[in-house]
Amino acid sequence: MVKLENSMNMALSDSIINLDHGDPTAYEEYWKKIGDRCTVTIRGWDLMSYFSDVTNLCWFLEPELADAIKELHGVVGNAATEDRHIVVGTGSTQLCQAAVHALASLAGTQPVSVVAAAPYYSTYVEETTYVRSGMYKWEGDAWGFDKSGPYIELVTSPNNPDGTIRETVVNRPDDEEAKVIHDFAYYWPHYTPITRRQDHDIMLFTFSKITGHAGSRIGWALVKDKEVAKKMVEYIVVNSIGVSKESQIRTAKILKVLKETCKSESENFFEYGRDMMKNRWEKLREVVKESDVFTLPKYPEAHCNFFGKSLESYPAFAWLGTKGETDLVSDLRKHKVMTRAGERCGSDKKHVRVSMLSREDVFNAFLERLANMKLTKTIDL
Amino acid sequence: MVKLENSMNMALSDSIINLDHGDPTAYEEYWKKIGDRCTVTIRGWDLMSYFSDVTNLCWFLEPELADAIKELHGVVGNAATEDRHIVVGTGSTQLCQAAVHALASLAGTQPVSVVAAAPYYSTYVEETTYVRSGMYKWEGDAWGFDKSGPYIELVTSPNNPDGTIRETVVNRPDDEEAKVIHDFAYYWPHYTPITRRQDHDIMLFTFSKITGHAGSRIGWALVKDKEVAKKMVEYIVVNSIGVSKESQIRTAKILKVLKETCKSESENFFEYGRDMMKNRWEKLREVVKESDVFTLPKYPEAHCNFFGKSLESYPAFAWLGTKGETDLVSDLRKHKVMTRAGERCGSDKKHVRVSMLSREDVFNAFLERLANMKLTKTIDL
Repeated sequence: MVKLENSMNMALSDSIINLDHGDPTAYEEYWKKIGDRCTVTIRGWDLMSYFSDVTNLCWFLEPELADAIKELHGVVGNAATEDRHIVVGTGSTQLCQAAVHALASLAGTQPVSVVAAAPYYSTYVEETTYVRSGMYKWEGDAWGFDKSGPYIELVTSPNNPDGTIRETVVNRPDDEEAKVIHDFAYYWPHYTPITRRQDHDIMLFTFSKITGHAGSRIGWALVKDKEVAKKMVEYIVVNSIGVSKESQIRTAKILKVLKETCKSESENFFEYGRDMMKNRWEKLREVVKESDVFTLPKYPEAHCNFFGKSLESYPAFAWLGTKGETDLVSDLRKHKVMTRAGERCGSDKKHVRVSMLSREDVFNAFLERLANMKLTKTIDL
Repeated sequence: MVKLENSMNMALSDSIINLDHGDPTAYEEYWKKIGDRCTVTIRGWDLMSYFSDVTNLCWFLEPELADAIKELHGVVGNAATEDRHIVVGTGSTQLCQAAVHALASLAGTQPVSVVAAAPYYSTYVEETTYVRSGMYKWEGDAWGFDKSGPYIELVTSPNNPDGTIRETVVNRPDDEEAKVIHDFAYYWPHYTPITRRQDHDIMLFTFSKITGHAGSRIGWALVKDKEVAKKMVEYIVVNSIGVSKESQIRTAKILKVLKETCKSESENFFEYGRDMMKNRWEKLREVVKESDVFTLPKYPEAHCNFFGKSLESYPAFAWLGTKGETDLVSDLRKHKVMTRAGERCGSDKKHVRVSMLSREDVFNAFLERLANMKLTKTIDL
């Protein structure tokens, strides 16, 4: 039986543990330690206009956020920012929809097919179906996709839910109607080795998963093509007339502090995050190893350009499997652990997605229930 | 020739004056006078979770914002908040789409017709057409709408663009498929007499037009029916996974201060706003009166329950008309004044919508150009 370093919070002993959403509250402790440096103060008459910079294509983007984004990518080395338009969104959720909308509206024929290789981020299904648009159509798993005509492939790398490194799987290099949106929400050094500076047409990032500030709802897209960027901006204008300035200003401040910590030996955020994730993954792997029922993917080591050494991956979600012929999401629910069903991700009942980014006491309570489930399972079998 | 109280800012003498959007920067001066009382301070580890209140149907609504909204409506007396769900949105723009989506998804047949009486808020057209949804269909002017089947009427009162008090025009009282969304963005005492406490099924409000904080992108809906509120929340979750918490916290603070000023003789925000609007409207009416070419609507006086006396309306937009047979939006553009074309609002070339909420120097520069246009027009005719 795994030793739990922190004794389980008694208040959690019988409560529901929700690891369905990837609520990244794990990082609160770090920002408490950083203290006042990230504090923002906003006066009553600040940030009142709709407009941030009328000379910018994305006129609702606060210039200091644009600067902070470019500087952070520069220091981390995970994405090229030169000769690109930055489009800010209400989370990368809004941006993903803006990008699909933009590409579809520029396509020769509609509806444009939208695909992602299974297992995929389940929210992509909802995002591309809920308004029943005539412009695009969710076509499901990209593996085996063979429809002709314009299509958009969503590539999430590291992948949500299973943490694997992904590239396009529908490869039609000579097809001008083939478009790709790269979702790099998790391509940061605490989760995965930074092996290359990404340089694709449309790259999405989100503040939530870098620093844990999900409540701010800030994401950004790095977009090569001006017409695509313009259409994305149009989408966001009609959808919500821009993006919260308070959130933008605060994001800028926190990203700047984050960038500064990258030079520090004791305060490096990504080192803190990596240590925390490593610790959690080791504890989870121990529980899984001691069980007869659960499985987890293995990830290859790779050289990380940011840390300058070979490192493992510690994804933000665990793609937990079961060896038995059971419905894993239901089994976990019986133990009051809420996870996302593999079926919603285009996979099967034997897999679930589990957030690794909860508060420490919640994570430990989850491990304890998982360890107990092993026993229950043994009795059941 | 009208006397301009503030001499025109030289920097504006040849620049473009953009009164197309209703950017409400007019109120900056007031909030500067109020000083530190509205300042918010947010620490690095605050507001990190996606969740605000998991016990609330609208789980991303900050409880202190809900309280501030209820208190303000209580003091102003413009809308009933009892037995209603509050849904927060990224501006009322996102909420209007959430409401149309919710009503359409609960309708027996689709697409549901969406109408508004002309002249209408031009953005309604974009909001209901840009994703080419199969769930609803923009059917234009509500006057003369006679299609059978489910429909949604958007009622904006006071109306954007023309400031008139509106009620539904498609009246099918026995039709269960008849739905109405009331947009009360401008139903506040600085713009119009508060003649009754509104008590409709879905009522939309926006922070932008009350206090001038457009950059925060905060709106709210008061919704009677639980299923409709649930569907609206679902829409906002898929669209943007909630709403900026920084903006919500700041909105709560400012609305609370605003409510407190309602008790003050010297600082009453609505009195300040009404005086400013009255002053601007009087100056504009004087320019229009001295011209032979322009027209403006007249508004009846009514008893305002908030101020306790009979008052005029001073809408946030001027619905400027021309007596000539010209394209008014082009005429104004020649003088570098950008306005919204009447045609976009379901009206004609002889009308434009002009924001009355710009900064003072911009407003005065607009008046000066308008006064000069009169002369130009006389020469042209």
